[in-house]
Amino acid sequence: MKRLRGLQGFLWLTYALVILNLPAFGQNGILVFQSDFGLKDGAVSAMKGVAIGIDPNLRIHDVTHEIPAYNIWEASYRLMQTAPYWPKGTVFVSVVDPGVGTVRKSVVLLTNSGHYFVTPDNGTLTLVAEQLGIKEIREIDEVANRRKDSGQSYTFHGRDVYAFTAARLASKTISFEKVGPRLTGKVVAIPYQKAVFGEGKVVGTIPILDVQYGNVWTNIDKETFKKLMVKTGARIRVKIFNSNEKVYEGEVTLVNTFGDVPEGENVGYFNSLLQFSVAINMGNFAEKYHVQSGSNWKIELSK
Amino acid sequence: MKRLRGLQGFLWLTYALVILNLPAFGQNGILVFQSDFGLKDGAVSAMKGVAIGIDPNLRIHDVTHEIPAYNIWEASYRLMQTAPYWPKGTVFVSVVDPGVGTVRKSVVLLTNSGHYFVTPDNGTLTLVAEQLGIKEIREIDEVANRRKDSGQSYTFHGRDVYAFTAARLASKTISFEKVGPRLTGKVVAIPYQKAVFGEGKVVGTIPILDVQYGNVWTNIDKETFKKLMVKTGARIRVKIFNSNEKVYEGEVTLVNTFGDVPEGENVGYFNSLLQFSVAINMGNFAEKYHVQSGSNWKIELSK
Amino acid sequence: MKRLRGLQGFLWLTYALVILNLPAFGQNGILVFQSDFGLKDGAVSAMKGVAIGIDPNLRIHDVTHEIPAYNIWEASYRLMQTAPYWPKGTVFVSVVDPGVGTVRKSVVLLTNSGHYFVTPDNGTLTLVAEQLGIKEIREIDEVANRRKDSGQSYTFHGRDVYAFTAARLASKTISFEKVGPRLTGKVVAIPYQKAVFGEGKVVGTIPILDVQYGNVWTNIDKETFKKLMVKTGARIRVKIFNSNEKVYEGEVTLVNTFGDVPEGENVGYFNSLLQFSVAINMGNFAEKYHVQSGSNWKIELSK
Repeated sequence: MKRLRGLQGFLWLTYALVILNLPAFGQNGILVFQSDFGLKDGAVSAMKGVAIGIDPNLRIHDVTHEIPAYNIWEASYRLMQTAPYWPKGTVFVSVVDPGVGTVRKSVVLLTNSGHYFVTPDNGTLTLVAEQLGIKEIREIDEVANRRKDSGQSYTFHGRDVYAFTAARLASKTISFEKVGPRLTGKVVAIPYQKAVFGEGKVVGTIPILDVQYGNVWTNIDKETFKKLMVKTGARIRVKIFNSNEKVYEGEVTLVNTFGDVPEGENVGYFNSLLQFSVAINMGNFAEKYHVQSGSNWKIELSK
Repeated sequence: MKRLRGLQGFLWLTYALVILNLPAFGQNGILVFQSDFGLKDGAVSAMKGVAIGIDPNLRIHDVTHEIPAYNIWEASYRLMQTAPYWPKGTVFVSVVDPGVGTVRKSVVLLTNSGHYFVTPDNGTLTLVAEQLGIKEIREIDEVANRRKDSGQSYTFHGRDVYAFTAARLASKTISFEKVGPRLTGKVVAIPYQKAVFGEGKVVGTIPILDVQYGNVWTNIDKETFKKLMVKTGARIRVKIFNSNEKVYEGEVTLVNTFGDVPEGENVGYFNSLLQFSVAINMGNFAEKYHVQSGSNWKIELSK
Repeated sequence: MKRLRGLQGFLWLTYALVILNLPAFGQNGILVFQSDFGLKDGAVSAMKGVAIGIDPNLRIHDVTHEIPAYNIWEASYRLMQTAPYWPKGTVFVSVVDPGVGTVRKSVVLLTNSGHYFVTPDNGTLTLVAEQLGIKEIREIDEVANRRKDSGQSYTFHGRDVYAFTAARLASKTISFEKVGPRLTGKVVAIPYQKAVFGEGKVVGTIPILDVQYGNVWTNIDKETFKKLMVKTGARIRVKIFNSNEKVYEGEVTLVNTFGDVPEGENVGYFNSLLQFSVAINMGNFAEKYHVQSGSNWKIELSK
């Protein structure tokens, strides 16, 4: 029996080793970064170093660090575009923070889809709150959730508060409750034109460009678009406005795939988010017609 | 004995936990992405989220996402340049796909070197098929190997077919056989000038630039070059053509290392792939002489 | 008893499997890359492939690969900026190597902070040696520590020596001693203006720009700055020189956070490294006033 007891001790040790090795799997343990820092300096690396220092088993990935400087709308858009493809339980940290040091709150949003978002509450959560649904919002208690010895630093919240808190949350070093007090109410939201049909027209926003190819994406979904009653292969009249100034007016052909039309032809299609988009087959629509994007860019479609 | 049986049950549980935690190690479990998507938007992140959702233990890395838009030749070159340095069993997924939605096939190539390549069969496989050798090609069965609920999306094959299939293959969720039916024959190949010696000249292609430094790389290997009988320190006559138009004519010094000559001098050397290359010591040859690269760029060397 | 012995064999197998799975955790096992290669070609990927081939359990991350070509000073700065935020035992590999093939040594520096730096000894270690302290320097024995079959390649030390040695060190495939012989003395250091106070002025260097936002960072720490006796909200006179040529002269307001002043105002503040910096609130100081950075850029502050 003594021997067996020794054996059992050994077993428990083995078991403990296995378990110690597992928590990142049992939980989600995935941490995804976004910022407007770019990749030319060491800021992103310092944030990841802090995260790895909390738990080397964290799976660390990125949305992008090429958000244009201070562009909160685009930060919001990129989170909404990617989060649904990551597993439940993934923790996102987004640092686009023109108001650092002002009164904006630091929060963690848990959506109904089971994703966490650690960020300044400055509009960054506009689209994920709207589309994935708010389950709970907590304000980060920056006294409890701040990297040690970082008290003297006024400006790098990304490293000392956001990455630090997100890594502790993702690794289950702290529970969601320990982030800080629960907030009732909503997140800060940026106003924009929703996709609607009326008087024979569909209107919407140009939330983003497909920058690599110069394609113009809209927030017009298939259901709303269908009310125009346009068939594949038919022509659609398109107007694009920057605030109230008309920037483009012309026609595009509705296609299922770019291969359906000759090179150089203007097309309308549904992008990977199943939203109506405008492009030139093998060309750059945005550059040619000087179209940009954001909450102040509107599009109008008619037959 | 009952106790021991309890113990054995416990052991099997432990063992199962260990095994569940191991497959990515036993197999290769490494997944390497390439695309022309750039890193400014969320497309790469969405692909990786899908892969991580299949198996969080996958080791995910990149070749590059800065392939110039639609440049299949460069996609082919980058795969050939990097794949040999990754371990046997690594799965590469390359998405440069100007013909998305047209008749091009989606395939997985297993090379004789033991690497897998998941990609549209549009020329992307030209150089790895030639240099690593074709062991087996399978066409992706896009009905079986497509992300659930992605049927409505026409355009993001990168995420819904390629990343999805590559992650399932890399994680051994499916075997190579389950990718789809075996194809006989070859992959689609882009024609280009092979490196050959004749009439006192060596001719070849400029497959790529070393963009960061502006160095001009060729496909001329050491064996072919040696037929010119040029010694280190000697001068070589160089002509460069874009299709049939001469873009550069001049001389370079053959060196072992850039440090052998003064700053600003034109040199010929063997790059990290042991192929003949042309550069300016501490300068940018490609920019100065307007040299670019691709299957239509040729180089001619003589004494 | 026989059965129990079978059981024990099984246990030891299980235990071995667990242990095989653990070394990267017990040690540090983290490998962080930096270079001036950019991310457009396959060079970084080839280095990582070599590292993964040595140990797939390595945690591989990056500082940046966007160091301007041949800029050793900036390589030195980025290491100093990020290394302290990574855990003790992390191995950094930095490849900015204009002198490849010349007499510069290949070394590994272990700092008093417990970080390892694998790099050509060409000035890259200037700032980490100074700020983290030299514990031990070893010269890489390039015969023992070189990727097999890479003898013919003259130029890609980054892949064949540095990444290879760093990965073997990080994974404990080799001990620090096996890197090569211990060097006595110092590392190669680039001279620059230290931050000092005298005659009512503080002088220092502009080691780097915060490129994404155009903010101008200095090496002037809080203690040195305090000798100027300037209070928050007060104005500071700033002169900036490139070598001996004056590039900027003007005033900035000392702030705790950008939010303290209107948009467009010139400010002085302490950055995330707690060093004095100059910026335009919501603007780009460096671009507006043509300020760059490096060991030859100096700044002078007075009341």
